[in-house]
Amino acid sequence: MEIPFTKMHGLGNSYIYLNLYQFSIKEEELPDLAKVIADKNIGIGSDGLILIHPSNKADVGMRIFNKDGSEGKNCGNGLRCVAKYAYENRLVESKNFAIETKAGNVQAEVHGDRESIKEITVDMGQPILQRSKIPMIGKDKEKVVAEAFSIDHTRLEVTAVSMGNPHAVFFVDKIEEAPLTTLGPIIEQDQRFPEGINVEFVERVNEKELHFRVWERGSGITQACGTGACAAVVAAVLNNQLEKEKEITVHLAGGDLFITWAMDGRVWMRGEAKTTVEGVFYWERNN
Amino acid sequence: MEIPFTKMHGLGNSYIYLNLYQFSIKEEELPDLAKVIADKNIGIGSDGLILIHPSNKADVGMRIFNKDGSEGKNCGNGLRCVAKYAYENRLVESKNFAIETKAGNVQAEVHGDRESIKEITVDMGQPILQRSKIPMIGKDKEKVVAEAFSIDHTRLEVTAVSMGNPHAVFFVDKIEEAPLTTLGPIIEQDQRFPEGINVEFVERVNEKELHFRVWERGSGITQACGTGACAAVVAAVLNNQLEKEKEITVHLAGGDLFITWAMDGRVWMRGEAKTTVEGVFYWERNN
Repeated sequence: MEIPFTKMHGLGNSYIYLNLYQFSIKEEELPDLAKVIADKNIGIGSDGLILIHPSNKADVGMRIFNKDGSEGKNCGNGLRCVAKYAYENRLVESKNFAIETKAGNVQAEVHGDRESIKEITVDMGQPILQRSKIPMIGKDKEKVVAEAFSIDHTRLEVTAVSMGNPHAVFFVDKIEEAPLTTLGPIIEQDQRFPEGINVEFVERVNEKELHFRVWERGSGITQACGTGACAAVVAAVLNNQLEKEKEITVHLAGGDLFITWAMDGRVWMRGEAKTTVEGVFYWERNN
Repeated sequence: MEIPFTKMHGLGNSYIYLNLYQFSIKEEELPDLAKVIADKNIGIGSDGLILIHPSNKADVGMRIFNKDGSEGKNCGNGLRCVAKYAYENRLVESKNFAIETKAGNVQAEVHGDRESIKEITVDMGQPILQRSKIPMIGKDKEKVVAEAFSIDHTRLEVTAVSMGNPHAVFFVDKIEEAPLTTLGPIIEQDQRFPEGINVEFVERVNEKELHFRVWERGSGITQACGTGACAAVVAAVLNNQLEKEKEITVHLAGGDLFITWAMDGRVWMRGEAKTTVEGVFYWERNN
């Protein structure tokens, strides 16, 4: 089967994008296709597969499949790429439109000319701050802000934020000295986080900038984590290190994201998306 | 820069193939391009880059770049893919032709229709059996055949073969019980092999078949190793487990190869090559 595709990435987080306005694939074949297409050796190579499809709930729809074949709910880097693709390929007419995801509709805005969208802003929703909803074990009905957190003979202070997925944010003086490889895996699996946690170390550079490094739940160190960058800005505001409503530049290992925690409580993320490959994948089904 | 490419693999060993009959790339840009194009996140994703170019020494030429940007000499799986590409795309007219490589000219023969070559036979050259040329430390001017080899409190027998690169072959009763992960890395770095060694465990199934597992020098466990499969057949003949001149089916983790150690001393390898992607890579040079 010949499958036309576009490969895109946001800060190095890469997916294969299929345009289901043009052709269709059987539902039961999707997990297998995602696994094969993400494989560097027998497929193309990516972090997974994203389907761009017509929607009757929003202007365009997306579904995301991880490289193990499981279906995910949302992905900030993927959303930016879908927005770029949808506008450049005239699946939408306006620069401001809604994308249907398994986690609900998300508002997106593209910046630039129709032929070459470079940046996209997406609505990352409202952060969840209630302890039991992060979830984090402890006395409920409180925010977890600069709470004493001892681990592996080290005394830290944790701020916990959920952006749909859970984040533990730790502020450090120098980002190069953040104990990412040593404490990341231990904190990720700590019993205080019953569903595990994404671990972020953050250095405040000034009133407009943060340095950011992440240990992702289930993945370890990655180049970029959109929800983590949002959680870092929210945590910095909660700790009175940054002001709300200002756009903050977050320096990730894979590049920069521009995050605003708006007055209405929603977090907006602006960042790049790049098209790297367009082609046809020759899919040889098993059986 | 828009770079048209074809992605192919032999038993899961994948490369991006560029047709330099159609366009050119500056020599000094090749290492960078190989690194980027092989990267799953910002590039396409592969084990490296192979250039198919006009040759005045043979019917067609190939150059191979590893994913670290270094230039390699030869690659059995890559040769089969180049042969398939060259014939299908009419870079050569005959089904039997010579390919220029950095390790010298190699004869290839394709099998099937012009539109869909499925199998290719390539000349893997003559094995080198002299101990000092493997190289392996010890008394010289001998072949290393079923020589006692103790390592990590385990007593084995080694047969050493160079196919341009060095291989240590160990016969086992059951391939599932081969100590690949435990002894592979130790043997690879053993002082008796001053340039390191590829480690192969081989089970003779019958007079026509071998099971094969490999620990590759510098790469660890891989799905397939063309020169290793050749070395396994040569070692089996030297140990009187197989006959010369017969085609042997070698079962690798990534699929089968069909190896013949011919009377003229050359080793012929027949196997599949598959085209998985055709497309355009949008290369964003640094600087």
